[in-house]
Amino acid sequence: MQNQPAAYEPARIGIVSISDRATAGVYEDKGLPALKDWLERALHNALSFEARLIADEQGVIEQTLIELAESCCLVLTTGGTGPALRDVTPEATLAIADKVLPGFGEQMRAVSLKYVPTAILSRQVGVVRGRCLILNLPGQPKAIKETLDGIFAAVPYGVDLIGGPYLETRSDVVQAFRPASARRY
Amino acid sequence: MQNQPAAYEPARIGIVSISDRATAGVYEDKGLPALKDWLERALHNALSFEARLIADEQGVIEQTLIELAESCCLVLTTGGTGPALRDVTPEATLAIADKVLPGFGEQMRAVSLKYVPTAILSRQVGVVRGRCLILNLPGQPKAIKETLDGIFAAVPYGVDLIGGPYLETRSDVVQAFRPASARRY
Amino acid sequence: MQNQPAAYEPARIGIVSISDRATAGVYEDKGLPALKDWLERALHNALSFEARLIADEQGVIEQTLIELAESCCLVLTTGGTGPALRDVTPEATLAIADKVLPGFGEQMRAVSLKYVPTAILSRQVGVVRGRCLILNLPGQPKAIKETLDGIFAAVPYGVDLIGGPYLETRSDVVQAFRPASARRY
Repeated sequence: MQNQPAAYEPARIGIVSISDRATAGVYEDKGLPALKDWLERALHNALSFEARLIADEQGVIEQTLIELAESCCLVLTTGGTGPALRDVTPEATLAIADKVLPGFGEQMRAVSLKYVPTAILSRQVGVVRGRCLILNLPGQPKAIKETLDGIFAAVPYGVDLIGGPYLETRSDVVQAFRPASARRY
Repeated sequence: MQNQPAAYEPARIGIVSISDRATAGVYEDKGLPALKDWLERALHNALSFEARLIADEQGVIEQTLIELAESCCLVLTTGGTGPALRDVTPEATLAIADKVLPGFGEQMRAVSLKYVPTAILSRQVGVVRGRCLILNLPGQPKAIKETLDGIFAAVPYGVDLIGGPYLETRSDVVQAFRPASARRY
Repeated sequence: MQNQPAAYEPARIGIVSISDRATAGVYEDKGLPALKDWLERALHNALSFEARLIADEQGVIEQTLIELAESCCLVLTTGGTGPALRDVTPEATLAIADKVLPGFGEQMRAVSLKYVPTAILSRQVGVVRGRCLILNLPGQPKAIKETLDGIFAAVPYGVDLIGGPYLETRSDVVQAFRPASARRY
């Protein structure tokens, strides 16, 4: 599998906010701006975003993830990972997964547990579909930042391993880790 | 979903001890008293217990959990979570689950690992069925206490989110955590 | 279930290196020697090894694990646990499992995370099949050692509980933990 040259083509990243109420206009969505801002601060690459705001409907979430995984190397979702009846983001993500990466769920919860004991209730998962890494993040902008700060160091090498573009991080935000054999610069 | 008024109605909690030998009378069950004692010390609410002592039979465990989840907001099991052939509590719990909450298993093992390295062998899970949160606890009274001390802070808010009664903890035993927007007092 | 007397019969242990390239002779396999060396240093028991070097083919891995689980009390695999398309060791291991022990995957990743942030990408699992405990280890000899150092204390009691031989560790390498009731010496 050939990695795409980061210098020539922007890395395409899907961001998906999953919320009945934000979709219905009951409140303003803060998930998409939080994801976009963090990624723009963290990555050197030129980025092209595919943004979606959708309701907590498992079928809609599955279709959205299937579509985004076709062209994106990374998809981050926010919302819908709690224990309530309408929280079905993890179910949708697992349903369209080729491989599950349990370390992401474990580590995202471990990171959030440093801030709130109720992080234990979060059901976030990380999966691979084709050449796309999909990660469920929490719903609150503050928790999105805390979680990405805590786990993103492993994302660029994960994207390498599934045939995606070479992501480069800004070391003042997060320091990507790769084994020496996988480093280009 | 309307939460039940804690002040008027006791919170109904299922406690289930799963052990071939205690069921056969080979030894005295210590699981049910350990669960009941801990809950009475930890919660302010009036409590109504549904207690069951049953054998390590997957079908029996499933039926017991299905029945208790009808009327209880919380079901705690003890026993049957090890790697031995007759240990089938996690299988039974997963079989009747609507949603799995992986954070409970992870965190219960992380808590127990502070005491014994063999906590890694425990296969405890936490799940939601309908409006009931079901948690598998270890078999030993000492480990039951250690585990509940370590994870119960997240249980009241978890019960809120699935439409259960407002559980209030005694802060000398455990301090329930809720986001500000979910606090009533 | 009668445990076999460790003094009379060697403990039979399966070691499996899973790698397309080592199988094709592109490079020398370092996984089998790393597993064997660690086990010989860690265990007092006389040991009889069943060693296999196989490609990253799910069917081949499954058949190998099924065969080894017939006669071995413990099978350790190395390789094939990453997120890449050809990494299918966890899928094969789960496919032939009687019981999954999620604590092993969680704790192996937690141990490796102390060394490299990309440990989050590892999908290792631990399972029981019949009377055999099967653990997926990382691919690199250094990571094999770090992981076994970090989790093996729980393995002898795990093997006890599924009816295997009484494994005794050398305390300068790792100190096996058993509850007092399970200790023989």
